[in-house]
Amino acid sequence: MGKKFVSERNLKFLLYEVFDAASLTQYPYYADHSRGMFDMVLGTAMRIGTNMLYPCLGEMDKIPPELVGDHVKVHPVVKTFMRECGEGGWISAIAPMERGGQQIPGIVNLVPNYIFAAANYSASVYLLLTTEAAHLIESFGSEEMRENYIPKMYSGEWQGTMALTEPQAGTSLADIAALAEPTSEGYYKIKGQKIFISASDHDGVENVVNLMLARIKGSPVGVRGISLFVVPKKRVGENGDLVFNDVNVTGLYHKLGYRGCPINQLSMGESDDCHGYLVGEPNKGLSYMFQMMNAARLAIGLGATAIASAAYYASLEYSQERLQGRRMTEKDPATPQVPIIDHADVKRMLLFQRAVVDGSLSLIAQCYKYGDLAIVLTGDEKEKYALLQDFLTPVAKSYPSEMSILSVSQGLQILGGYGYCDEFPLEQYYRDTRIHPIHEGTTGIQGITLLGRNITMKDGFAFRLFLEEVQETVRAADAIDELKPHARELEDDLEKLQEVTSHLLNIAREGNREVFLADATLYLELFGIITIAWQWLLQAVSVQKALKNKDALSESDLNFYEGKMYTFRYFFGYELPKTDGLMKRLLGTDGLTVEIKADFFSD
Amino acid sequence: MGKKFVSERNLKFLLYEVFDAASLTQYPYYADHSRGMFDMVLGTAMRIGTNMLYPCLGEMDKIPPELVGDHVKVHPVVKTFMRECGEGGWISAIAPMERGGQQIPGIVNLVPNYIFAAANYSASVYLLLTTEAAHLIESFGSEEMRENYIPKMYSGEWQGTMALTEPQAGTSLADIAALAEPTSEGYYKIKGQKIFISASDHDGVENVVNLMLARIKGSPVGVRGISLFVVPKKRVGENGDLVFNDVNVTGLYHKLGYRGCPINQLSMGESDDCHGYLVGEPNKGLSYMFQMMNAARLAIGLGATAIASAAYYASLEYSQERLQGRRMTEKDPATPQVPIIDHADVKRMLLFQRAVVDGSLSLIAQCYKYGDLAIVLTGDEKEKYALLQDFLTPVAKSYPSEMSILSVSQGLQILGGYGYCDEFPLEQYYRDTRIHPIHEGTTGIQGITLLGRNITMKDGFAFRLFLEEVQETVRAADAIDELKPHARELEDDLEKLQEVTSHLLNIAREGNREVFLADATLYLELFGIITIAWQWLLQAVSVQKALKNKDALSESDLNFYEGKMYTFRYFFGYELPKTDGLMKRLLGTDGLTVEIKADFFSD
Repeated sequence: MGKKFVSERNLKFLLYEVFDAASLTQYPYYADHSRGMFDMVLGTAMRIGTNMLYPCLGEMDKIPPELVGDHVKVHPVVKTFMRECGEGGWISAIAPMERGGQQIPGIVNLVPNYIFAAANYSASVYLLLTTEAAHLIESFGSEEMRENYIPKMYSGEWQGTMALTEPQAGTSLADIAALAEPTSEGYYKIKGQKIFISASDHDGVENVVNLMLARIKGSPVGVRGISLFVVPKKRVGENGDLVFNDVNVTGLYHKLGYRGCPINQLSMGESDDCHGYLVGEPNKGLSYMFQMMNAARLAIGLGATAIASAAYYASLEYSQERLQGRRMTEKDPATPQVPIIDHADVKRMLLFQRAVVDGSLSLIAQCYKYGDLAIVLTGDEKEKYALLQDFLTPVAKSYPSEMSILSVSQGLQILGGYGYCDEFPLEQYYRDTRIHPIHEGTTGIQGITLLGRNITMKDGFAFRLFLEEVQETVRAADAIDELKPHARELEDDLEKLQEVTSHLLNIAREGNREVFLADATLYLELFGIITIAWQWLLQAVSVQKALKNKDALSESDLNFYEGKMYTFRYFFGYELPKTDGLMKRLLGTDGLTVEIKADFFSD
Repeated sequence: MGKKFVSERNLKFLLYEVFDAASLTQYPYYADHSRGMFDMVLGTAMRIGTNMLYPCLGEMDKIPPELVGDHVKVHPVVKTFMRECGEGGWISAIAPMERGGQQIPGIVNLVPNYIFAAANYSASVYLLLTTEAAHLIESFGSEEMRENYIPKMYSGEWQGTMALTEPQAGTSLADIAALAEPTSEGYYKIKGQKIFISASDHDGVENVVNLMLARIKGSPVGVRGISLFVVPKKRVGENGDLVFNDVNVTGLYHKLGYRGCPINQLSMGESDDCHGYLVGEPNKGLSYMFQMMNAARLAIGLGATAIASAAYYASLEYSQERLQGRRMTEKDPATPQVPIIDHADVKRMLLFQRAVVDGSLSLIAQCYKYGDLAIVLTGDEKEKYALLQDFLTPVAKSYPSEMSILSVSQGLQILGGYGYCDEFPLEQYYRDTRIHPIHEGTTGIQGITLLGRNITMKDGFAFRLFLEEVQETVRAADAIDELKPHARELEDDLEKLQEVTSHLLNIAREGNREVFLADATLYLELFGIITIAWQWLLQAVSVQKALKNKDALSESDLNFYEGKMYTFRYFFGYELPKTDGLMKRLLGTDGLTVEIKADFFSD
């Protein structure tokens, strides 16, 4: 099993050279921090990832959570890790200081989350869900609610979850049916079924705080009648002790991967004694939940990238050690075999893996940076960055999710037969990462969000902001000889993207919404490739800046920058051309998939 | 769990309407057969697949083979199935009657193999390997060898295998080191290690006949010193009884999927008592083995397609039953939810799955038909069809193998969270089918075979034969109004393919073989898409012929043909455009992947 799962060098490159995270400390909100402190975050997270999480990766897969009686037993490291997260302040990292948080920039908080997910994706989810659930209570909950729940969540003693899906309402949240009946004591009586709820019961914590969508009796049908509730597994009883809140585990899913984290079926109110506490106002649950969902979507893009990173280093290590065959220029079969990294096709596969990993990570860092700027800036600037983050979220969720699968698969391929066997971690990464295009809104839903909502929101203002961001990078690259041709290529593609977008919006204007959105998934794919090309160009600009002082660079830095440039060229040479076929298809709208009748599939 | 795993209608369409298998009975070699008999083959195979194999699919995955002492225990159905295959004549189906076979055309024999693999891929491999190993002995073994082994293999009592890979020689067969020392008694003493040998030990049979590559002591290094041996697990002793032949199981792999079939490590000659029997002449082993390897490559393309077919029907069934969301034109959330097959994005995913399945199956049927014509014809015609089959084998292996993964993955996606859980078979198909780009020569090797060997073989004669075949279909389609635009599209792509090929051959001529072959995998991908487009056009010609008598068709036939036309249009609309990006890259040769140094990957 490999030893390396992330590149610290690349994290620092993105943090300091590309996105200048240290510059955030100029704003009062982040003024207590410094680059030295960011480095410490990285160093500590690497130690936890390496010493605590990575060693349990295979074990948590092979000995998955178990339903014992009506409770879920998980690997003992979960408890250790959650406490460590509490003590180390990882759960409260991005929360404001006035709420007991560390007020760390999102782009810096990306670092531990990425490292933990690369070391052990399943383990990282316990932390993420708790962070996000606490953040939701902090944003919209009452003062009492904050006091009751947040400290225990920050300490890692209580788990947070998001409880949305129901048997009849997966993607279609409008059909949520869980019921909340008001009582005279202020709480609501909850009754309903939830399915596919990650980490919603386990013995690594003392309690679970479900952030749950339900419908207050008498509310309107559809999304306008959904409210958000805190529904803990155990509620605080009259004399301050924890009493069972009638949240029952009715099932545990047996999954392809991501096995270290239990996904449960819950049944609330079987004994008519499940209390729920309304968050914010009635019927606004979905809009509150979108804060958590959008955060989760970025986190999923990050998790997918992290698994792809671990897979990259595992196959890189194998390719350096495995001797097989000879260079094509070597005709003498008596000469020794070479490491397979000497074969061009293996290098191509490695470049693909790295192009996906570093490109995706850059985009996600970009999104967190936007979020940080939206916090510290005001007025139009605040709106601009908040919009940019919102606009790009479906891309930052889906490109990494879809491409992680392909890049892990290429990593597995590098190992040949061994990649298919559990002696090496590739087969687990391949199973683990398949979850990402599914949870927190499938790729299909992300496509519809991008094309059907984000492109047109505020009359296309967010889209124009995005185009300006890319154009700014194009201009910077255009001023550097080595990057000029690539800047032109991206500019061309950006124009064609606008052409495709106009073409589709015209169809929408003609009133045919189904045809307009029929290929939204392909549009998302196209958008993703162009967005990642932008991020590669942005990275290349930083690399060229660093290479100006070539002589002052260490050999390892020089190798790092050379590697970046090759991977950048790989992306433009091998990945960006894929937009040609996508654009051809998107411009050739014919309503094929809308038109075909269900009966035509049957034989 | 779904019930349908293949389309009998589509098998008949390919056999009778597209490839006119019945016409083969006009040749004396196949004259004993008839369409009625082919139908019987299909019917019987469906019964075995449905009643015997499909019900064990999940169980064989969940209770995989086990190493008990030094023997491998497999699911009891393996023994039942092997005997059924013996009694039903499935193992000897394509063998000549004079050797005890049924002399069935390869294109017809595709039917049971496809059905068995779709019902239960792991189970189908026991049959396939035995068929192919017996065929190899029959082609190159001595009369005595045939008598000793073939009857027991045909009866399903003895298992056949191919034993090539060694720890230091996977893809690089030139490095095979297993040793064969001649003895005065005619046999050779064998010593060596083999790894990743499918079905090479199990309790479903009485004996295992390994077709093994080894090096006769003193032979030249490299591929010119490799010989082929029969190395049975038990040899026939002096008084006719079976005695242990010192073939030891030293390990059993734990695999991602394809778990119903054991893959073993073998150690031959640990007690210096392993007898091997030379097949044919010394040092010609690799060329003999290529017969079996090429047959196995087609079979793998078929197996990959079969799994994709089973996945298609599983997700189709789900999409028809699962209610979720509403048509986009429906604004009232109080209306009932619709089956998800009503959503365009789901129909797009289903069309992709079917496009891969039906397109791949058509290409494989085409290859088997070429093989059949090569048997019955003579002279130039014989050579033509043998060459065409040989030429297309890497494409028929790789396109289905690579695309099965993507199409099963889309199938899984259709089921959302359920696709990720083992209540439904998609997650198993996803794991099972990942083996195909690895075994019997990775996709990388197939690319090098196509571009580095097949394109130039006989001075490009095979490539020209291929182009003529496609052009013939283009001409037929060009005469049909509905197909004219698609015929033109394929013609354009065929021209561009020749341009790309010339460009690459020029690089080869300049002497840079590494750069020439650096993107052979992409060339293979390009070639695959164009080849499958050809097969779709060929199918569309047959559909249009059938639709001429529209009024005479049953509703189910009409739905079938309409579905075919939509899937054909899907392929040309969504898949064929992918060639644009590939061609751009292939024409932009820059040696990037040859040039980049191994050190540049490391950080």
